[in-house]
Amino acid sequence: MRFDLAFIGFGTVGRGLADLLLEKKEELKKRYGMEYRVVAISDIKVGSILDDRGIDLKEALRLAEARTSLETLPAQKKGLSAIETIRASHSNAIVEVTWTNIVNGEPGYSHIKTALSLGKHVVTTNKGPISLYYRELMKLADANGVKLKFKGTVLSGTPAFNLFDGVLAGCSVSSIRGILNGTTNYILTEMEKGLDYKDALKEAQRLGYAEADPTMDVEGGDAAAKVTILANALLGINIRPDNVKRKGITSVTTKEVKKAKDRGGRIKLIARAEKKGNSILAEVSPIPLPVSDPLANIMGVTNALTFATDCLGNITIVGPGAGRRATGYALLTDLISIANGK
Amino acid sequence: MRFDLAFIGFGTVGRGLADLLLEKKEELKKRYGMEYRVVAISDIKVGSILDDRGIDLKEALRLAEARTSLETLPAQKKGLSAIETIRASHSNAIVEVTWTNIVNGEPGYSHIKTALSLGKHVVTTNKGPISLYYRELMKLADANGVKLKFKGTVLSGTPAFNLFDGVLAGCSVSSIRGILNGTTNYILTEMEKGLDYKDALKEAQRLGYAEADPTMDVEGGDAAAKVTILANALLGINIRPDNVKRKGITSVTTKEVKKAKDRGGRIKLIARAEKKGNSILAEVSPIPLPVSDPLANIMGVTNALTFATDCLGNITIVGPGAGRRATGYALLTDLISIANGK
Repeated sequence: MRFDLAFIGFGTVGRGLADLLLEKKEELKKRYGMEYRVVAISDIKVGSILDDRGIDLKEALRLAEARTSLETLPAQKKGLSAIETIRASHSNAIVEVTWTNIVNGEPGYSHIKTALSLGKHVVTTNKGPISLYYRELMKLADANGVKLKFKGTVLSGTPAFNLFDGVLAGCSVSSIRGILNGTTNYILTEMEKGLDYKDALKEAQRLGYAEADPTMDVEGGDAAAKVTILANALLGINIRPDNVKRKGITSVTTKEVKKAKDRGGRIKLIARAEKKGNSILAEVSPIPLPVSDPLANIMGVTNALTFATDCLGNITIVGPGAGRRATGYALLTDLISIANGK
Repeated sequence: MRFDLAFIGFGTVGRGLADLLLEKKEELKKRYGMEYRVVAISDIKVGSILDDRGIDLKEALRLAEARTSLETLPAQKKGLSAIETIRASHSNAIVEVTWTNIVNGEPGYSHIKTALSLGKHVVTTNKGPISLYYRELMKLADANGVKLKFKGTVLSGTPAFNLFDGVLAGCSVSSIRGILNGTTNYILTEMEKGLDYKDALKEAQRLGYAEADPTMDVEGGDAAAKVTILANALLGINIRPDNVKRKGITSVTTKEVKKAKDRGGRIKLIARAEKKGNSILAEVSPIPLPVSDPLANIMGVTNALTFATDCLGNITIVGPGAGRRATGYALLTDLISIANGK
């Protein structure tokens, strides 16, 4: 299959995909029969270019890394908005990697809706639209005969959703529990070393793990969006992030962290979802876990997820929670799935 | 697809598959288009029956559980050997679940070779033939247009091999490291509580985790066979169990276990394989790990495996290392894969 790709957003994640597309070009063609051309890039910071004959991705990447406008490159059209780029480009697949907004999902929601309505596949890492409008968007994709893939919204490409497609076929999941936010896990890890919450947060900000406004992470919004996505996709339910009972880590004290440790445990921000008959339990909260729990030992920015299954009991998967290459790779495997008709 | 199955071996693992086949019969047909009939069962303890019109699996299971001979059931033929059963039955797939022998792979090796040569698919949990003759048997399967699947040889069905088929397409594995033997991990866990090696072994035997002759487990033979299978399948190399440098846990003392713990670590029997240019490192040995290593925190009979990948860095998967249902499930998913032409 041949993709004509339009990048909507060209920040760290989009560029992570661009790295891999360049690096693995031959392998993609040989192993997966997947070819590509980038026909448009539209980014709020580095500008917008469209050329249906193909853009020099390597050069675009170099310019974006240097924070130079892409519009210095030759192109048929320049300066189009994201929506205009989706409409005007002869793309058959959109890489939607703009910022996450879990209040109303915008602008990603409009980008994805527009693309699907035009019969374009979408791969995205944007938690906003997927956590808020999963069923609606999947229906829209189906109705237009295209795919919407979002593996990178959770665990940055570490297998989560698709474990139960092929690999664990015949096995059903009754509940999920995980550490889905690397920033808060890093802060809790540092607090165990004796730092208080504020200093641990500062350290996380210094290292680029936490944003200047850390609200989404520390108050559990990010984890709530992710557990919503997992629950909707894996438990066959239909919830929204505001159905998730939520408590963050801002009120966790060093004393509590130490107390849990003295008792042979560890406080973790746990996101979980479980279907109990017709009711659904979905929650994010800091919980002291015994060290015998695999999740208790996940340190730093690593993420982990435990599935309770009918066939194998508990299975836990541990992997990176973020990172340019990991998240770019999530998008790449989504494209490979689409190329293979999955 | 319709399977006419012959069970070669009908012990715990075979019966685990039988449970699931009965329990999920409707789902298998509806979701995976997979139908089955059991046309033969040949077991050294409960006898041998063959009936191409189909055997009453539920009744056979009941008899086997009661340690009563299957030969009390009506059948076209009774008392055939395993090889005769493979040849004489009109089966198109063989479930090979006899005992593991890592010296020469027999009798499983002959069973599998005979079945593949006759154009019958094989699913197996038998580590002997797969660790010793992987390439030869895969070639034979290819040449006869059938499949040989062996997911249950490692981690009892917790995804390991097939992580890199579909789910992690485009990602390559440079090394593997894991806790692949539940018995030794249980013994080391008990030793950390203060038991000496002999008492911990006795306890493992009492609970059915260790056999009367525990050599294969405690001297690392089982882990060596498993890491051989993983290395051959995932690292594209060709080794045999005796290429694995091996040290078991028989000489580990409670004092050493305590010392590692006092230093904030934990001794684990680690199996690992790595390709370094043209040379291969493959080893099983007890190693003190820092608790920050996800493998350090795997307790009891649980298994775990860390893959170093080019795309996602380290990914660890944790799951059951044994168990009737888990291993039966591994066989079931192998059958589902074959039914789906994979």
